[in-house]
Amino acid sequence: MSEIKAKGEKRLVVVSGRAHPQLAIEIAEELGCDLVPTDARTFANGEIYARFDESVRGSDAFVIQSHTAPINEWLMEQLIMVDALKRASAKRITVVAPFYPYARQDKKGRGREPISARLVADLFKVAGADRIMSVDLHAAQIQGFFDGPVDHLFAMPVLLKHMREQLDPSTLTVVSPDMGRVRVADIWSDKLGVPLAIIHKRRDPLVPNQVSVHEIVGQVEGRVCLLVDDLIDTGRTIVKAAEALKAAGAIGVVVAATHAVFSDPAIELLQCEAISSVVVTDTLPVPDDKRFPTLTVLPIAPLLARAIHEVFEDGSVTSMFDGAA
Amino acid sequence: MSEIKAKGEKRLVVVSGRAHPQLAIEIAEELGCDLVPTDARTFANGEIYARFDESVRGSDAFVIQSHTAPINEWLMEQLIMVDALKRASAKRITVVAPFYPYARQDKKGRGREPISARLVADLFKVAGADRIMSVDLHAAQIQGFFDGPVDHLFAMPVLLKHMREQLDPSTLTVVSPDMGRVRVADIWSDKLGVPLAIIHKRRDPLVPNQVSVHEIVGQVEGRVCLLVDDLIDTGRTIVKAAEALKAAGAIGVVVAATHAVFSDPAIELLQCEAISSVVVTDTLPVPDDKRFPTLTVLPIAPLLARAIHEVFEDGSVTSMFDGAA
Amino acid sequence: MSEIKAKGEKRLVVVSGRAHPQLAIEIAEELGCDLVPTDARTFANGEIYARFDESVRGSDAFVIQSHTAPINEWLMEQLIMVDALKRASAKRITVVAPFYPYARQDKKGRGREPISARLVADLFKVAGADRIMSVDLHAAQIQGFFDGPVDHLFAMPVLLKHMREQLDPSTLTVVSPDMGRVRVADIWSDKLGVPLAIIHKRRDPLVPNQVSVHEIVGQVEGRVCLLVDDLIDTGRTIVKAAEALKAAGAIGVVVAATHAVFSDPAIELLQCEAISSVVVTDTLPVPDDKRFPTLTVLPIAPLLARAIHEVFEDGSVTSMFDGAA
Amino acid sequence: MSEIKAKGEKRLVVVSGRAHPQLAIEIAEELGCDLVPTDARTFANGEIYARFDESVRGSDAFVIQSHTAPINEWLMEQLIMVDALKRASAKRITVVAPFYPYARQDKKGRGREPISARLVADLFKVAGADRIMSVDLHAAQIQGFFDGPVDHLFAMPVLLKHMREQLDPSTLTVVSPDMGRVRVADIWSDKLGVPLAIIHKRRDPLVPNQVSVHEIVGQVEGRVCLLVDDLIDTGRTIVKAAEALKAAGAIGVVVAATHAVFSDPAIELLQCEAISSVVVTDTLPVPDDKRFPTLTVLPIAPLLARAIHEVFEDGSVTSMFDGAA
Amino acid sequence: MSEIKAKGEKRLVVVSGRAHPQLAIEIAEELGCDLVPTDARTFANGEIYARFDESVRGSDAFVIQSHTAPINEWLMEQLIMVDALKRASAKRITVVAPFYPYARQDKKGRGREPISARLVADLFKVAGADRIMSVDLHAAQIQGFFDGPVDHLFAMPVLLKHMREQLDPSTLTVVSPDMGRVRVADIWSDKLGVPLAIIHKRRDPLVPNQVSVHEIVGQVEGRVCLLVDDLIDTGRTIVKAAEALKAAGAIGVVVAATHAVFSDPAIELLQCEAISSVVVTDTLPVPDDKRFPTLTVLPIAPLLARAIHEVFEDGSVTSMFDGAA
Amino acid sequence: MSEIKAKGEKRLVVVSGRAHPQLAIEIAEELGCDLVPTDARTFANGEIYARFDESVRGSDAFVIQSHTAPINEWLMEQLIMVDALKRASAKRITVVAPFYPYARQDKKGRGREPISARLVADLFKVAGADRIMSVDLHAAQIQGFFDGPVDHLFAMPVLLKHMREQLDPSTLTVVSPDMGRVRVADIWSDKLGVPLAIIHKRRDPLVPNQVSVHEIVGQVEGRVCLLVDDLIDTGRTIVKAAEALKAAGAIGVVVAATHAVFSDPAIELLQCEAISSVVVTDTLPVPDDKRFPTLTVLPIAPLLARAIHEVFEDGSVTSMFDGAA
Repeated sequence: MSEIKAKGEKRLVVVSGRAHPQLAIEIAEELGCDLVPTDARTFANGEIYARFDESVRGSDAFVIQSHTAPINEWLMEQLIMVDALKRASAKRITVVAPFYPYARQDKKGRGREPISARLVADLFKVAGADRIMSVDLHAAQIQGFFDGPVDHLFAMPVLLKHMREQLDPSTLTVVSPDMGRVRVADIWSDKLGVPLAIIHKRRDPLVPNQVSVHEIVGQVEGRVCLLVDDLIDTGRTIVKAAEALKAAGAIGVVVAATHAVFSDPAIELLQCEAISSVVVTDTLPVPDDKRFPTLTVLPIAPLLARAIHEVFEDGSVTSMFDGAA
Repeated sequence: MSEIKAKGEKRLVVVSGRAHPQLAIEIAEELGCDLVPTDARTFANGEIYARFDESVRGSDAFVIQSHTAPINEWLMEQLIMVDALKRASAKRITVVAPFYPYARQDKKGRGREPISARLVADLFKVAGADRIMSVDLHAAQIQGFFDGPVDHLFAMPVLLKHMREQLDPSTLTVVSPDMGRVRVADIWSDKLGVPLAIIHKRRDPLVPNQVSVHEIVGQVEGRVCLLVDDLIDTGRTIVKAAEALKAAGAIGVVVAATHAVFSDPAIELLQCEAISSVVVTDTLPVPDDKRFPTLTVLPIAPLLARAIHEVFEDGSVTSMFDGAA
Repeated sequence: MSEIKAKGEKRLVVVSGRAHPQLAIEIAEELGCDLVPTDARTFANGEIYARFDESVRGSDAFVIQSHTAPINEWLMEQLIMVDALKRASAKRITVVAPFYPYARQDKKGRGREPISARLVADLFKVAGADRIMSVDLHAAQIQGFFDGPVDHLFAMPVLLKHMREQLDPSTLTVVSPDMGRVRVADIWSDKLGVPLAIIHKRRDPLVPNQVSVHEIVGQVEGRVCLLVDDLIDTGRTIVKAAEALKAAGAIGVVVAATHAVFSDPAIELLQCEAISSVVVTDTLPVPDDKRFPTLTVLPIAPLLARAIHEVFEDGSVTSMFDGAA
Repeated sequence: MSEIKAKGEKRLVVVSGRAHPQLAIEIAEELGCDLVPTDARTFANGEIYARFDESVRGSDAFVIQSHTAPINEWLMEQLIMVDALKRASAKRITVVAPFYPYARQDKKGRGREPISARLVADLFKVAGADRIMSVDLHAAQIQGFFDGPVDHLFAMPVLLKHMREQLDPSTLTVVSPDMGRVRVADIWSDKLGVPLAIIHKRRDPLVPNQVSVHEIVGQVEGRVCLLVDDLIDTGRTIVKAAEALKAAGAIGVVVAATHAVFSDPAIELLQCEAISSVVVTDTLPVPDDKRFPTLTVLPIAPLLARAIHEVFEDGSVTSMFDGAA
Repeated sequence: MSEIKAKGEKRLVVVSGRAHPQLAIEIAEELGCDLVPTDARTFANGEIYARFDESVRGSDAFVIQSHTAPINEWLMEQLIMVDALKRASAKRITVVAPFYPYARQDKKGRGREPISARLVADLFKVAGADRIMSVDLHAAQIQGFFDGPVDHLFAMPVLLKHMREQLDPSTLTVVSPDMGRVRVADIWSDKLGVPLAIIHKRRDPLVPNQVSVHEIVGQVEGRVCLLVDDLIDTGRTIVKAAEALKAAGAIGVVVAATHAVFSDPAIELLQCEAISSVVVTDTLPVPDDKRFPTLTVLPIAPLLARAIHEVFEDGSVTSMFDGAA
Repeated sequence: MSEIKAKGEKRLVVVSGRAHPQLAIEIAEELGCDLVPTDARTFANGEIYARFDESVRGSDAFVIQSHTAPINEWLMEQLIMVDALKRASAKRITVVAPFYPYARQDKKGRGREPISARLVADLFKVAGADRIMSVDLHAAQIQGFFDGPVDHLFAMPVLLKHMREQLDPSTLTVVSPDMGRVRVADIWSDKLGVPLAIIHKRRDPLVPNQVSVHEIVGQVEGRVCLLVDDLIDTGRTIVKAAEALKAAGAIGVVVAATHAVFSDPAIELLQCEAISSVVVTDTLPVPDDKRFPTLTVLPIAPLLARAIHEVFEDGSVTSMFDGAA
């Protein structure tokens, strides 16, 4: 008998970087398991070290990291964890990056620029990642940057459910804060069955040297405006858009976005008079000192946990979103 | 003496597929050389064969192909030529694809779709291409699909020069035919210093089952409208847009696009009353039976030739477009 | 508990391109399953699109395509399907190409030629194929072109069974139509226990400028000749061989080949007087207008289905052919 | 029903090269299976051929080879076996190289040298190896040469158990035969709780031209010295060290090493007066004509078998060594 | 004429990250050129952006970065710069990393650890680096982690020259601060022609629970001790070693190291009484607040500049170090 | 000025393994340079070491090795040399393997066999070879095993010239010793303008158990037979063929082959009565004790030197053979 047979079992393990431990804990809870105990540390000179305290051999491993500032630290930590999993004989490694790092550098806007979003895909690949899972990629084309499956999840069902409970469609208009984000606003407009408007930034022909005006394309007077975007970084674009809408006669401005990057001075700006409320998810950590009265943070863990479950069980992630990828 | 020294010379050669020989000839003329004589044939069962009649050893080779229908034939021919160049010891191989094939399948719109634009980049790479040169990519992110340098050229200077000679800016409005192409229209609007409008297709809430209306966002009444897009395929979107503009009071509609795909029934549709003229380049062949009285075809060969020259001479392609990539 | 366990199940799915749907349906029937419903289309400009309507996540997927004319279309369609399967998280992807495309361009016959058969192997690999299954490769070395397992099947048992029922070995001679195919004829001769003859094409030394004569090496007078080859393309070689055999006194000529490429004017030529019957398999589709009275088409689906079953069940493909690979 | 389901079973197979068949047989016995019957041969011109007589499709295959002289023959044989397994559809291939070949060429000591230990890792990879298992790598960094998991086993538990039974710690001193091997001696010293000494080879400042003296750093007078190293090749270093220890007053010298390379004139040298006994394992074959009265050869098969078992069952190799990798 | 010929010229460009601009400026000065003007920035959310203001097409580009804290920022910046160079058609890209990041994580000390030094090599490779240049790698085996040429430079000539001017060999002993660094000390001992001693840290058998003593192997009483290491991080090891040497009767302790990592509390510790002077190079920046009276910082730029020159001119780097790699 | 310019020179270096030094010396002489002085050695345990004594940085390096027995030693030596060249920054590395190792294992004849000829191509590639140069590949398809250019040279001009001087075409017949080598004999027959015959080995139907008879297909009575093959290994096939020819009335048998493998008992067998003379080239070394009176060894160095010269100078290798590859 020149072989030994054994039952083929598969096992799911979840490991987490240190950027947003709460999210990983909630995902594990939803899945009904614990995180693999991990010794992750930063040495005095800034080098990161990570080691798993239990065997991950043969496992279907999901490595959760949330790419908040300091983003390069957390990216490097995740790469090191992937390397450790690979060398520890994990069977399959999925990088879970709810907010894809460097997503905005997705093309060369000018000569001699990097395409850092592609670079990040290659870094994950070479470290040993077999798959990527992410939420609301800044550009859907980023899926094509990775040489392997990308599970692209959408926070829209989560945000939409909340908005439907809060807002009256009869007076609502969806607004895109700039020309580049129109496609997302278009889907919102369609899902809610309400009109669309667009903010168009352009140079004022009367004032030389790059001064721009915010022109509103579409009707907003007397409407409640729902400004939608994939992310809020410093908040400048959103706030300028909200002010332009108010100046044009909007009776209220609500902001919805998936990724709360919230770099300075976002917290201050978003509490301006023009914006009545802001709704985000916690793909990125929103610590207490970044929470303000008009902010609502919706949990993303249930969505991620369900997707991880579908991936592990060879189910269908697509079916979670009615066929969208 | 355990070495032999020789002067390091470099030599440029241009080879061409059979899809659009005129373009390759014009490029070679601009460069001041001949095309490498090539035996390219299709066998009875549809297999393609290609062989170069002169040595290409050590050369900096540019392989020109224009991806018109039957697009898979021409793509395969180009891959075969790249393979032959690689095995014939060309030093560096640049795929020149003025119209990038499968550019519109640049993301998964729904689950279980391919990302054929990335696939094409990988096919070029594995065949042996070191670099890609293309004009007006449908999405700039496609640059990131290729693992190597992509020289992304813009036809806008060519089209803009023509338009400036033909149109009066004081009565002109740039129009984007749909939400997805707004970014291009935005640049045109900025370059010409004229207003912008957008066509917004959406479901008519009064009519069930997916009937869409073309809503115009922005002012077009009494204006000459310049409809801009990267390509014209069947022409349906463009013509519906033109008709909507006329219905909204536009006094004229001019269409500008880089790539004249012109699938049926584009030729018929584009000659409709609503459109006064159409301007394209010849990145794709426009045979005589596809030319109609109101069509102007601008030559793209000078742009490609200059870019090839810059690449060969280690000059700057970026500088051809004021810093844009 | 930092892991979740699940039973490791495996599932087989079969998808098919549009080149030869009947073959795929028959294979699925033999296996006892349905084909995965697939939306495959060609757009107006010739670009192909494919999407699977059911989840293929975690599956052992077999992608069947038959590389008949237009061969580049079908090759590209299969590559796109492989890409879609890869991105949809299929676990293992096997390209089933009963007739390997570009198999005859398996070496550089002259300088600056491509090796398209190797190129095709690389295209499959880069698209995401883990394995290839094919029937009667033009050269067995093509197995070495692919970086991974190749299941090389033989149609000979199918053809041999038929021939044994039809022909009397005591008057039979196996004939190779040219020098390059002698090895195949040699195996037939051995299996049937009958003599071998060879057609040797060479320049007639008495007539200048490349005129060739068909010299017969071996005895064929008064014998029934079984002309064997891996494929019949235009039929010219086969018919010239049959005529030479008749002229040399053969009392009948039967033709057997695996792949019915049947490019023009094969159908006309094969119905010549010299050939009494032609036997092929349906690795390539043989539509009604290519069927003629003396043609027999043997089904290849049972062989492919059994091999797929062995691959899926970790059985032995080799054992199907008494140890040959 | 567009899928067929089957139970996912896994099966372990062990194949062996011809360098050290006894080791492979013992490993298989420990595991409770037979070796896969294999036809491995060397042709008249020195080319090696290997073929497995049973199906290995879908298996978890371990390829055992012992890299003794002629080391390049056995390395090549193992590479050929890995290639055959890959092409025969083994699911996962682990190279078992108890003594890693070319481990000592692990860096460029001077310019224009190869790093053959990295080269070997790449050769295994390109042939198709997914994993490597080895014992007491000359430098632990070699794990990093392979792009995949390396199971690094330690013979120390085996050797230590033997030594504890033979030697009295109260009079024992562990000695490193040169500066480069101090780290190993350090661990021995720690495990046994006994002092450490080091032999320091250096140029004699009084004698020009590279004459070296063996200086002893640490106290050895009146002590039994345990000279430890990872391997014994020609034995010259070890014997010189032993003689220096005796000259310095040591009352006995015992030698322990994992890998018995035993190149000429090791057998003669190791039987010198200065050395009272030598203990090694059989990672490399020690044929009868290389066995001498004071030599003890400990079996390594139990360790390798247990590690293979852990790898196959997704257990933990790390746990075999209290957490060391 | 189907080719255009041009003279093959090569051009060297030097670009620099923001970690240690002074070093890059000094290297450029030594070479006699300017750094390529570069726009490198960190955005509000921590993402890094870099763009070169001049064409680098066809150049032999050297990317200088010094991997000081925050080390992951600077590593990521360098990767982004390499990506930008690759996409901007640089001909060859050399990563200059005077202090190789993560060099100390060069093996798995325990199970489930990463090998981050190999990971870093792979990150450089996948970003587009063709070559690496570094100084005094923590382990020479790291050369083997990169799939391509590594120019491994040695600071020893620089440090040795300084030491020879400062110290009297007749009273000098070279000391290795621990077992793992003995090899470096051995070379110093050899070059200076002076004796060697080693600090051996081990558990005190009299005190349970991991308390270690610093045992000195070799003679140091009445000697000036030169403690040598490749790097000084927190300084704890070095200071404990120095104190042990003083306690053992050393009359002075001088410290020499290549890389001044100087993490907290190194600056405080190194000014202890036991150490009379510290000599390092500036492979890492030593800002004013880290400079103290007994510290000497030797410039490394001349060495790097000369090596870059040799690489660019196809000279010999090996010859800079008498044959060592 | 942010760049330094230099003249792009290229330099050719030739290095050689130890298998057939005479061939390398002759090639270097033809080229007009010396071999790079190299320290190549085999250590006591069989490991090979190689180091170049002069800088090869930036060179166009050709690594000559002749794959005679012990073939695995010489293959490994060549791989190590390629690795050393790669790490020493050679610009381009060409493996010169006049007799391609393992060429006969070019396909799977049976299940679970390796394809060692493809494996060898991959080993060369992963070690760092950019190109391969070889003479008379056993199967031309081997060119397709390597992912890069293969310069396939033909010894036929050398052999043909000799034969034309020695033999009278009017009485000559070219004979293929078996079915698998017919293609080569066909070309000879064509070039010499003489008839062709074939030896057909098959089972004797009258004698059970694999006894084979040598049937001659074609006319040989009263003719001088020129038996041609790519290689002579043990000589058994050739001698049996010669004897069959003599038995069939041939008046003389001359043997021509490119590669003189000459494994035992070739030397004895080839001196049989049936063979009047044997002509080979020295792609493999033919030492004095393998030379016999009827053997002629033609030098292959001029052919290889000319091909190397063409490759280095970007000339045409194809033109050396009238267009054949």
